[in-house]
Amino acid sequence: MRKVEYPSAIRELIAQLRQMPGVGPRSAERIALWMVQARGEQPSAIARSITATRETVRACERCGFFTTEEVCEICADSTRAADQLCVVEQPTDILPLEKTSAFRGRYHSLGGRISPLDHVGPEDLRIAELVKRVESEGLSEVILALAADVEGEATTNYVVELLKPFPVTITRIAHGLPAGGGLESADELTLYQALSGRTKL
Amino acid sequence: MRKVEYPSAIRELIAQLRQMPGVGPRSAERIALWMVQARGEQPSAIARSITATRETVRACERCGFFTTEEVCEICADSTRAADQLCVVEQPTDILPLEKTSAFRGRYHSLGGRISPLDHVGPEDLRIAELVKRVESEGLSEVILALAADVEGEATTNYVVELLKPFPVTITRIAHGLPAGGGLESADELTLYQALSGRTKL
Repeated sequence: MRKVEYPSAIRELIAQLRQMPGVGPRSAERIALWMVQARGEQPSAIARSITATRETVRACERCGFFTTEEVCEICADSTRAADQLCVVEQPTDILPLEKTSAFRGRYHSLGGRISPLDHVGPEDLRIAELVKRVESEGLSEVILALAADVEGEATTNYVVELLKPFPVTITRIAHGLPAGGGLESADELTLYQALSGRTKL
Repeated sequence: MRKVEYPSAIRELIAQLRQMPGVGPRSAERIALWMVQARGEQPSAIARSITATRETVRACERCGFFTTEEVCEICADSTRAADQLCVVEQPTDILPLEKTSAFRGRYHSLGGRISPLDHVGPEDLRIAELVKRVESEGLSEVILALAADVEGEATTNYVVELLKPFPVTITRIAHGLPAGGGLESADELTLYQALSGRTKL
């Protein structure tokens, strides 16, 4: 008696779905069986939607945010402050910052951070493009909003050095106690940074 | 200043992915952004795999298990016991039973269970097909392996009544204490069934 398995199309689908982030073997199998058994058009609609997204969405030529045009809606929005530029690691960092409504300028996504262990050097990031924008866009302020970890800090320092020759104010977002976090749950470095960065009341 | 959103293709993809079982808004967004940013061919391969599965996989004409042929590999396997039939609710119940190696016959998936609240009656299930198989396949035993809940029980009882006229032994899988479960964690009905179904040692 042969060991019974799902038909190879289903096994292949399970293997493919497992590549999605946060989807383990059990949920991949659950999703695949749902896709096989669904009576409606939903699974086909999902397949079409994946294809459509891959074909139409690309990175904004200027800032790296997602767009279906050459330039994204943020860069194209003439009502935004043209003299402030916020530098982030990933295009996915932009919407969370937008939701704060604390920033009205434009963005520049580097596409990552300097990380020698992952073989990511400055030349792999959109740093040269950033320098060009600083040269040509008449900015008054560049805000560095990179991660508060070793690699984010290293990237911040690298960019600061590069931009020093230009007549532009360089700032970075504050590091300190997260909202809702008590002192007892903060680690030593966070507390150190919160103390050093104290602001006058 | 307009509220910034992802391009509509991405928002549509997030909405589509949310329909998958076990995928909430946050994981749908995470998967969608991975699909947009992935450098390789993985997202396209997933889309192709969904389409291929939807186009090629269907229900076995005889038992209802998944197959790409007319008849599934279980029904086609001549080395399996031809006189035992195990009745399950869903085709997805078959592989878990196979993994036990406790059954060497064939299966029949009803495609659900009788559930008046969900407007599922006997005529919506593959019950007539089951009766036909009992009439024609010369079975010696029909094992009912439906859920141990109210609707599963009702379906079991309905099928038992229907099959009574036929010269076939009708059994159902045991209800009792699950493996690893202590008496203190078992509910009253489970204990009642475990007691009533006690076996001689």
